[in-house]
Amino acid sequence: MTLTKKPVNGMKDILPQEMYIRDYLIGEIKKTYKSFGFTPIETPVVENIENLTSKQGGDNEKLIFKIMKRGQKFNLETAKNENDLTDSGLRYDLTVPLVRYYSNNANSLPKPFKALQIGPVFRADRPQKGRFREFYQCDIDTLGDASNQCEIELITATTTLLGRIGFANFTVHINDRRMLKAMAVYSGFPEDSLDQVFIVLDKMDKIGIDGVEQELMEDGFAKETVEKYVGLFHDLQEQSEPLEFLGSVLAGTVEEGTAENLKTICTSVEKLASVPFRMQFDPTLVRGMSYYTGTIFEITTEGLGSSVAGGGRYDKMVGRFTNIDTPACGFSIGFERIITILMDRNFQVPDAPDRTAILLEKNMPDDRILETMQQAQKLRGEGREVLVTMMNKNKKHQKEQLAAEGYTDIREVYVNPRD
Amino acid sequence: MTLTKKPVNGMKDILPQEMYIRDYLIGEIKKTYKSFGFTPIETPVVENIENLTSKQGGDNEKLIFKIMKRGQKFNLETAKNENDLTDSGLRYDLTVPLVRYYSNNANSLPKPFKALQIGPVFRADRPQKGRFREFYQCDIDTLGDASNQCEIELITATTTLLGRIGFANFTVHINDRRMLKAMAVYSGFPEDSLDQVFIVLDKMDKIGIDGVEQELMEDGFAKETVEKYVGLFHDLQEQSEPLEFLGSVLAGTVEEGTAENLKTICTSVEKLASVPFRMQFDPTLVRGMSYYTGTIFEITTEGLGSSVAGGGRYDKMVGRFTNIDTPACGFSIGFERIITILMDRNFQVPDAPDRTAILLEKNMPDDRILETMQQAQKLRGEGREVLVTMMNKNKKHQKEQLAAEGYTDIREVYVNPRD
Repeated sequence: MTLTKKPVNGMKDILPQEMYIRDYLIGEIKKTYKSFGFTPIETPVVENIENLTSKQGGDNEKLIFKIMKRGQKFNLETAKNENDLTDSGLRYDLTVPLVRYYSNNANSLPKPFKALQIGPVFRADRPQKGRFREFYQCDIDTLGDASNQCEIELITATTTLLGRIGFANFTVHINDRRMLKAMAVYSGFPEDSLDQVFIVLDKMDKIGIDGVEQELMEDGFAKETVEKYVGLFHDLQEQSEPLEFLGSVLAGTVEEGTAENLKTICTSVEKLASVPFRMQFDPTLVRGMSYYTGTIFEITTEGLGSSVAGGGRYDKMVGRFTNIDTPACGFSIGFERIITILMDRNFQVPDAPDRTAILLEKNMPDDRILETMQQAQKLRGEGREVLVTMMNKNKKHQKEQLAAEGYTDIREVYVNPRD
Repeated sequence: MTLTKKPVNGMKDILPQEMYIRDYLIGEIKKTYKSFGFTPIETPVVENIENLTSKQGGDNEKLIFKIMKRGQKFNLETAKNENDLTDSGLRYDLTVPLVRYYSNNANSLPKPFKALQIGPVFRADRPQKGRFREFYQCDIDTLGDASNQCEIELITATTTLLGRIGFANFTVHINDRRMLKAMAVYSGFPEDSLDQVFIVLDKMDKIGIDGVEQELMEDGFAKETVEKYVGLFHDLQEQSEPLEFLGSVLAGTVEEGTAENLKTICTSVEKLASVPFRMQFDPTLVRGMSYYTGTIFEITTEGLGSSVAGGGRYDKMVGRFTNIDTPACGFSIGFERIITILMDRNFQVPDAPDRTAILLEKNMPDDRILETMQQAQKLRGEGREVLVTMMNKNKKHQKEQLAAEGYTDIREVYVNPRD
């Protein structure tokens, strides 16, 4: 069979220039999150198929790369459909593996457990510009702590990280799934229509409040209900203390303390901020994943359509593995999105080490090569990165390429030394 | 379906203690290899199935995790065998993806190209102690340079790395596939039996020269041939300059310069050594992979059965993708093996940052929590890693666990301050 030079459809080779930025970003992530006491962990790229298809992943479950059974377990003759032929798949996020990991290893982990996980995830999405079928995610999660200290810390750590890599003018949006639900129920939407309502609400930033009103009407909801709901959002816009207002309007509908909890998180995060950003209660924030049970949050930056980080509380997921509910809260940064932004900004990795390139003319005698390599070893001992390489025919192009790679010191060695 | 807490069969969750060592090792690898001018790259975990089954991977091709086609391309009714249902698989090594990568991107890469790749590979091997179905490999390769500067540099870089992470008393074994072949042909083995001969020769360190002789006889090779072959190894043992001896014995059989080339590599590597080790021509070194075309080498350490690194020259593999042969040479360290050794040695990561843990008694008022978190932020600003966490009921166990994680400074905060 002919060999294929291209990567598999929708995946990509990472070239050196991008790789330097990725290495830098991973380094900053690890340094920052470890300084908050998050512990690095790693889970297999391959996950049990039953864990990937347990209706926790929403639409992502439709995009799984499934792995075929092997040996005698693979039986084409008795297979009725593809499910009979697979036993595992590539993870579509880091949360499902994390929760499995915690369930499997809880006895040897500290309580609460603060995890940091960075690694590739896979979705057989339609390939499109800037979206790949293999991409990195980077998550921090706290498991086993029900207090809002989790949210405060996750947001503080992530904003600290964003500040450290040069992001500014960003906004942290926060809401609570319980508040979201209570606002809809208070307005009169039936409990079983909430997902449909939130899909429309989620378009607020694109179609505006009037667009949301129109679409909800078109979906056939009662005029009175839609008007009451839209009225709430209008009222909220006029409040200087929207959370206090909502807390009193929704008293009896929403779980007690929900508004106060959001308020505490907002003021605490603001007091802990090490870089300037806006912290903002956003009653229109939905976040897609069905597993969220409480606070939800995301970070947007000015001039960029979508968010650069998102997360929330999911207190019921560990219980699906262990039958014992365990509070959990996580924040995931859009690793690839941040890489794209840094690449577009022509980001230069700070504190890159000094690089020396030594170009050897062709037909250099062995002893002169060795001499050069010894000299290179000496420079490495002094902390420099030293490349010893062949001089190309097109030396000008070679030197330009090396300069672009950060080689500030380029030396040439000729068979017959030119003075 | 019930969810599964264990990782998929043969794969493993990486716990924090091991993760710290892995992060440390990856850091040292990158630092060392980058100082030699190797450029980090990354290739997808998923590879085109035709590239994985092109008979370059030897037995590894029997161990591929195959990924199912999706959507309309998946047709169970017309499928005659599993090959009709798969379009890709998980890579079993980093060399095949590297060569595809180079073939795909050669125009934008420097020539020669020195690549560093670290990442997981997958083999559906029988699970056994210390061997996993997902494991990391770490490779350096030079593509586009036919000179022995590649070998000298690959070996020097790898021995420098091993020295830096505390390995001593190791031996670099070197041979050349052409020498290996010439010795067998010179002795009278038919060309088409060489693979069979080398499988026996490879057992030398286990069954000794007499065992090799006996097994070759049992395999039905001519007595005269086997005796001539074994005689060569006996003669070699008595030579003070085995390479010069072989060069003259095999003159006309082996490509000219093969022995001198090995000699140059050995003496150069010795002169460049930054840590003490033995550099040794080893005529019994075979290395399994069929793609090697020239020098082959591996590193063993005293008291350990198998090697910690292995590699060689493979000048014909790029040509399979591009139809133009490109010289290539690589060295792969046994990442998981080194991790196991470091774990067994109870290795402590050097220069770990100072870690402070602050334990908060239950029911701490919000303002006191915030105050503690502010204090933690201040300590982080001074370069410390600071964990703020709940005080457990079993505080003694918690503090022991924290101490084991490297928290040298553990502070306790009570609702009613004591003393």
